[in-house]
Amino acid sequence: MDPAKLLDILGNENRRKIIQLLASRPCYVSEISNRLGVGPKAIISHLGLLEQAGLIECSVDEQRRKYFNIANNMRLEVSVSPYAYTVTLHDVTFDREKEEDPVGKETHLGEEPSTFFLKLSSKLKGLKTRQEELAQMQQQLQAEYTEVMDHCLDSIEEIARTPVECELLFELLKNETTLATLCYNLRLHPSIVNANLIDLTKRGFIEYGIKNNQYYWKIRETGVENE
Amino acid sequence: MDPAKLLDILGNENRRKIIQLLASRPCYVSEISNRLGVGPKAIISHLGLLEQAGLIECSVDEQRRKYFNIANNMRLEVSVSPYAYTVTLHDVTFDREKEEDPVGKETHLGEEPSTFFLKLSSKLKGLKTRQEELAQMQQQLQAEYTEVMDHCLDSIEEIARTPVECELLFELLKNETTLATLCYNLRLHPSIVNANLIDLTKRGFIEYGIKNNQYYWKIRETGVENE
Repeated sequence: MDPAKLLDILGNENRRKIIQLLASRPCYVSEISNRLGVGPKAIISHLGLLEQAGLIECSVDEQRRKYFNIANNMRLEVSVSPYAYTVTLHDVTFDREKEEDPVGKETHLGEEPSTFFLKLSSKLKGLKTRQEELAQMQQQLQAEYTEVMDHCLDSIEEIARTPVECELLFELLKNETTLATLCYNLRLHPSIVNANLIDLTKRGFIEYGIKNNQYYWKIRETGVENE
Repeated sequence: MDPAKLLDILGNENRRKIIQLLASRPCYVSEISNRLGVGPKAIISHLGLLEQAGLIECSVDEQRRKYFNIANNMRLEVSVSPYAYTVTLHDVTFDREKEEDPVGKETHLGEEPSTFFLKLSSKLKGLKTRQEELAQMQQQLQAEYTEVMDHCLDSIEEIARTPVECELLFELLKNETTLATLCYNLRLHPSIVNANLIDLTKRGFIEYGIKNNQYYWKIRETGVENE
């Protein structure tokens, strides 16, 4: 799914409530409508949108009544900082039929079902704790990134000789980029950008590489150890 | 900020574009309007909303022209899976004035500015790589969580004696919960829920604890090693 599409979907409070409800268990339209206190017509229209996006799917029970459940397993990350706005959407896929046996079901075949259940529950708890730890590490990294970027800006002011050099170094710090993208982002003529790039290369700040048959520019890699 | 508020804000394409632009550099209203091809009136209204939410802030330059920049550093994570919908918003705070010296600025005082710049750039690159690694680990964890949850559901079907027991065990697997929340979530009378909780406790599947002066129920902790 396109991350923008998911953000559009999540931008509506009732759609968020529907997703939350379906993530707790599959539901009929009437149940959703009752829980949310929203008319069935509006619910059906939201469900149509969610289904079209592939976020939910519809099944039919023994009494031929339609019910809906979450069809997808995905993870959206948005980070907003003075130096970066990034949106990433990961599809979390795994094969339910696969041969491996991550929960050790085979080895527990002779075990009491109740013992196995308690072990699974303890495993789930461990996974949750690990998720929280990783989320905290991500926060720390983002804070450190902003901090290093602050210092980079000070540093750029010291070494750049023109405002264009300033802008180019800042762009290249964020991403390896082609000449065309630099011209577009900075609204500058290629001849000006090129002259500045050549000068920065001569002074040892940047270099170019080739990727997918395209030249791109980047800050020079010095091979200095990352402390 | 309330995560719901941020999702409401990000639900609009033009607001996303404004945030993206401001994360690349501070801008005047006229610049934003030109870049996005959207009239200044609409831009001003979006900016007002973003400023009110504390996401951006406004400053005045030497010519007394207003410009806007990102004021915040935050990280939003949304995960949608058949068993969980979670939205978390982390404020990434750090003190720009703090005493510590994570980039080793002090130790580089005698160093050439150009060498220091290249070191910072290499450090930034390392941070980005680490961020990607962590994001991948998060994906794997989410996949594993869904898989273990699948097995838990099979396991619950084996051990539960009534449909209510099924629902209770499933709810408690997801979260430690109070009696009141269980009654509300499952739309069941407290007497029914209580009778089932007592039975499950006797059979050794669940137990209760006290947190913030409230009784809450949880799956029994066995002290079994997390493999």
